[in-house]
Amino acid sequence: MINHVRHLLLGSPLPSADVGHNRLDKVRALAALSPDALASVAYANQEIYLGLLVAGAAGLMQSFTLALVITALLGVLALSYMQTIAAYPSGGGSYTVARENLGELPGLVAAAALMMDYVLNAAVSLTAGVAALASAFPALWPHRIGLSLALLLLITLVNLRGLREAGTAMVVPVYLFLGVYLGMIAWGIGVALVQGPGVFPAVIPPPAEPAVMPGALAPVTLFLLLRTFASGATALTGVEAISNAVPIFKDPVTVNARRTMAAMAVLMGILFLGTIGLTQYLAVVAGPEETILSALVRRLFGSGVVYLLVQLATLLVLIVAANTSYTDFPRVVSLMARDGFVPRQLRALGDRLVFSNGILLLAGLAGLLIVVFGGDTHALIPLFAVGAFLAFTLSQSGMVLHWWRERGPGWRAKLLMNGAGALATGVALLVIGASKFAGGAWLIILLIPLLVLLFRAIRRHYAEVGRQLRLDDDAPPAGCTRHPRIVMPVAGVHRGVIEALNYACSISDDVIAVYVEMEPDSAGAMRARWEAHGLDRVARLVTVPSPYRSLIGPFLDCIDRLDEESPDGWPATVLIPEFVPARWWHFLLHNQSALPLKWALIYRRHRHGKARAVIDVPFYLKE
Amino acid sequence: MINHVRHLLLGSPLPSADVGHNRLDKVRALAALSPDALASVAYANQEIYLGLLVAGAAGLMQSFTLALVITALLGVLALSYMQTIAAYPSGGGSYTVARENLGELPGLVAAAALMMDYVLNAAVSLTAGVAALASAFPALWPHRIGLSLALLLLITLVNLRGLREAGTAMVVPVYLFLGVYLGMIAWGIGVALVQGPGVFPAVIPPPAEPAVMPGALAPVTLFLLLRTFASGATALTGVEAISNAVPIFKDPVTVNARRTMAAMAVLMGILFLGTIGLTQYLAVVAGPEETILSALVRRLFGSGVVYLLVQLATLLVLIVAANTSYTDFPRVVSLMARDGFVPRQLRALGDRLVFSNGILLLAGLAGLLIVVFGGDTHALIPLFAVGAFLAFTLSQSGMVLHWWRERGPGWRAKLLMNGAGALATGVALLVIGASKFAGGAWLIILLIPLLVLLFRAIRRHYAEVGRQLRLDDDAPPAGCTRHPRIVMPVAGVHRGVIEALNYACSISDDVIAVYVEMEPDSAGAMRARWEAHGLDRVARLVTVPSPYRSLIGPFLDCIDRLDEESPDGWPATVLIPEFVPARWWHFLLHNQSALPLKWALIYRRHRHGKARAVIDVPFYLKE
Repeated sequence: MINHVRHLLLGSPLPSADVGHNRLDKVRALAALSPDALASVAYANQEIYLGLLVAGAAGLMQSFTLALVITALLGVLALSYMQTIAAYPSGGGSYTVARENLGELPGLVAAAALMMDYVLNAAVSLTAGVAALASAFPALWPHRIGLSLALLLLITLVNLRGLREAGTAMVVPVYLFLGVYLGMIAWGIGVALVQGPGVFPAVIPPPAEPAVMPGALAPVTLFLLLRTFASGATALTGVEAISNAVPIFKDPVTVNARRTMAAMAVLMGILFLGTIGLTQYLAVVAGPEETILSALVRRLFGSGVVYLLVQLATLLVLIVAANTSYTDFPRVVSLMARDGFVPRQLRALGDRLVFSNGILLLAGLAGLLIVVFGGDTHALIPLFAVGAFLAFTLSQSGMVLHWWRERGPGWRAKLLMNGAGALATGVALLVIGASKFAGGAWLIILLIPLLVLLFRAIRRHYAEVGRQLRLDDDAPPAGCTRHPRIVMPVAGVHRGVIEALNYACSISDDVIAVYVEMEPDSAGAMRARWEAHGLDRVARLVTVPSPYRSLIGPFLDCIDRLDEESPDGWPATVLIPEFVPARWWHFLLHNQSALPLKWALIYRRHRHGKARAVIDVPFYLKE
Repeated sequence: MINHVRHLLLGSPLPSADVGHNRLDKVRALAALSPDALASVAYANQEIYLGLLVAGAAGLMQSFTLALVITALLGVLALSYMQTIAAYPSGGGSYTVARENLGELPGLVAAAALMMDYVLNAAVSLTAGVAALASAFPALWPHRIGLSLALLLLITLVNLRGLREAGTAMVVPVYLFLGVYLGMIAWGIGVALVQGPGVFPAVIPPPAEPAVMPGALAPVTLFLLLRTFASGATALTGVEAISNAVPIFKDPVTVNARRTMAAMAVLMGILFLGTIGLTQYLAVVAGPEETILSALVRRLFGSGVVYLLVQLATLLVLIVAANTSYTDFPRVVSLMARDGFVPRQLRALGDRLVFSNGILLLAGLAGLLIVVFGGDTHALIPLFAVGAFLAFTLSQSGMVLHWWRERGPGWRAKLLMNGAGALATGVALLVIGASKFAGGAWLIILLIPLLVLLFRAIRRHYAEVGRQLRLDDDAPPAGCTRHPRIVMPVAGVHRGVIEALNYACSISDDVIAVYVEMEPDSAGAMRARWEAHGLDRVARLVTVPSPYRSLIGPFLDCIDRLDEESPDGWPATVLIPEFVPARWWHFLLHNQSALPLKWALIYRRHRHGKARAVIDVPFYLKE
């Protein structure tokens, strides 16, 4: 029945031979991998507006300049990652690049940063989407944790069904968002040409959050610009997604992935420059309780149907942005599992050809973040950018070393470009880490070394296990002539005991039945029944008292005593007759002593370091 | 470590030989078994006041008359149960009496009613105690579900430690309550002698609950008196406790139990008649937000230290009233388990010589009631009296038949007395059932037949299992010469596999290793390694493809195919090599395929109805 529900929700299992069929074409891959980056534009816009607002109109006049710097950085990043795609067609992104070029430690740091970033992206995108929805329909506001978790569940199920379906489901919202925003920018350019530049008002309304505005206007200092740049650089989170997921593209994978990367970067640049440029040129300012994007849309179209359509598209793209984490997180942990840094279960493909365990781990961690942070986007954002820029910096630095070592055609230009990227992302990392340390970045900075230690401990464990299992010599198995002694607990004389004895004497001629006297003075009657049925001809009956009315302790003591008299030092095999009721709820009606006894036997190391085998002989009850 | 915590909380195990030592003397037994009945006086008082208040002063002048009727009923019940104690010294009360004299069905009805009553008593007493506490300290009000559950946990732990400790813990609050109330009544009689009778005011303040008071004064009709009698009769819930628990008394059990029963009835009568008599004689009326008992105490002592002491004693006795359920509920379910009507696990004594499973079941059900009814006493009260009076009526009727059949010396008087008791409790049952049906009694009336059906289904199951296990002939076990085929899943060639093969070939010369090809095209390499280590001399290697990358399905299909070629029709034995990591958290690092495979094998019936044995061969990892 569980299987039935599972197939209904997730689809039937897919054979391994179908791996190639589930790959994505460029249109679907863009939809599956870009929403994280595209949706970042929405909140980066707001961050830049809020950052410059403290300096008034003079500050806001710097918006487009900052946007150009960030877009330039985007260009550098995109070109670098296109080179990474060519150099590493099996995917892996920052983790692979840092590990192969800089060494294991930087690789693990990059992996830890990336993993946390994917989890944060899922949580932030969902809470931001739900918060936007709840702002439009205030009745939903008290339920936003529940709504976020419901969306998380929905996206998890879609992803467990498999990649092709996930890509298909994402096509509509992503292209709706792109279409609506590109149309808006085109219309806005027309409006700007007709109306000419706007003039900022003398007094700009402060935003609803009072903490953002100081008492008086701040001057436009270099520090203010740098800080605002760092905030706006959150627009770039998610840019690396495509380079991590190269193998999901259709053949030729490298070409398709690079083209998709270029298309995404160009689209992001147009959206970012277009919206910020229009905002500055038309001198749009936001009311106290709306975002700057919302103010721009109202300025261009009023508050009618078009406004609602743009807001809806923004909401949807934020929701699907969470999906990029579902494509990349399981892929990164699978790569790390292959190298033995995380549990092996995260490596394998599930029966729908997706990394099911990785998806479930991501969903669990994101759900935990949503609950712990009360579904509040603003509490999560400071944790977010640090990891992304740490991974960028390590990846760029790795590429610098890569070109230096390789020195193929045109290596100087490539090295210079990656060096500029490493420097820019490194500076941004320092600025973000310093300015957001107290706000939450400290948690990430603390967790990264802890995760790295954990990764190494896990790999040490696997190495140790491998060492213990290795066959040093080619000795064939020995000792085949030994016949084990069988010890079997009995609670009475009935058909189940006969079946078990039957089995025991078919594999050994040394069988001992142990009766634990749970009710005082019952041993005599038991021995009489045993002998009346002639069972003493097959197995010796040993009775042991149980002063505290428990089964397991006296039984374990008894087999220890029996082992001491074992001639060859091998522990006796324990045979457990087990009732199997016909219906699951019948289990409630029987003392379940077999299971704890088995566990006690298997997980209790034998004192001589020799393993004790345990045999289950089921007895099936009918009806 | 779990054992350590358990011993700290619950004490060390006690040997069976200590059973007699944990019995209670009369003083402790009264403390352990009477609080339910004694605490009932507190709310019965209030019920009578509220019931007669609707008829004004003319109604309240009937209080003492009603109290006399209820006390007379108490006397009849107490005398009847003293006879029951003599006739049934092994305890069991209403269940045993009804079952032995009226037949199985009435016995089961009485048992169902009693079980629900004990659960309700625990829940009602705790919520009433907590509500009283929270009334004194309003800051605790929002936390009363949590407080009730905390008290429930505390009482559960005290009872899991064992009866003697439970009796000791109850001595202080019960005798404090008795001392304070008896002193108050003595002082009140002095006050009454000095001051003479009081006069009811012309206008009596209505209680805070508006639903209780009609618009105009009601006349004093027979129906009003009957209804108030039925409400006041809740004072008698818990009277049967001692007769159910006869075996916990010290020898001579019968004499001690009868004397304790008599002492309890006399004390209850004094408390009930004394408080109601004083209230009527002094014409005490309650303010809008206090109980009539609280008003009486204020009238006698003012609102000072003595008032607080009496209220505190009332609170404490309500809390320990819950404890009587812990003595009786596990005992009744243990009796029923002996007869096979409830799961067997409820029968046995735990290692502290108490019925641990019964105590845990009671605590779970009471906790559920507390949570479902929001910790509200008034919502629970209507469910409460029906069960008690149903059990009373069945028990009294059973005693009538008992005397009729036995006709020993003085049987006529005894029969007449029990007949009167049966009639009175039967009438009360009808009145309570009718007047409280919509308020919650319907739930109990619905649940009782369902529980009876469940009891019978459980006994049918045990009977059927017994039939299947019975040895009809004395045939000795046969088939000892058969050597089972051993089939063993292997995932590679390493030390664990060698150990398992070693064991397999020591019990059978027909060993087959099955390799499930989880990674495509890995079978060839596996076979090469198998042969390189010479393992093909010990066991044939069979490889099976796994198109959906799962282990269990292909393996089960493979052993089904192997079973078809079995010459004697017996299914092969499956041997599972199992890694046992050195630390529990290492389990997270290994694919746990052994456990689900074992379960799938044991709980999958073999098509020929023959049982398949499963052997675990552990391989202990060091470090």
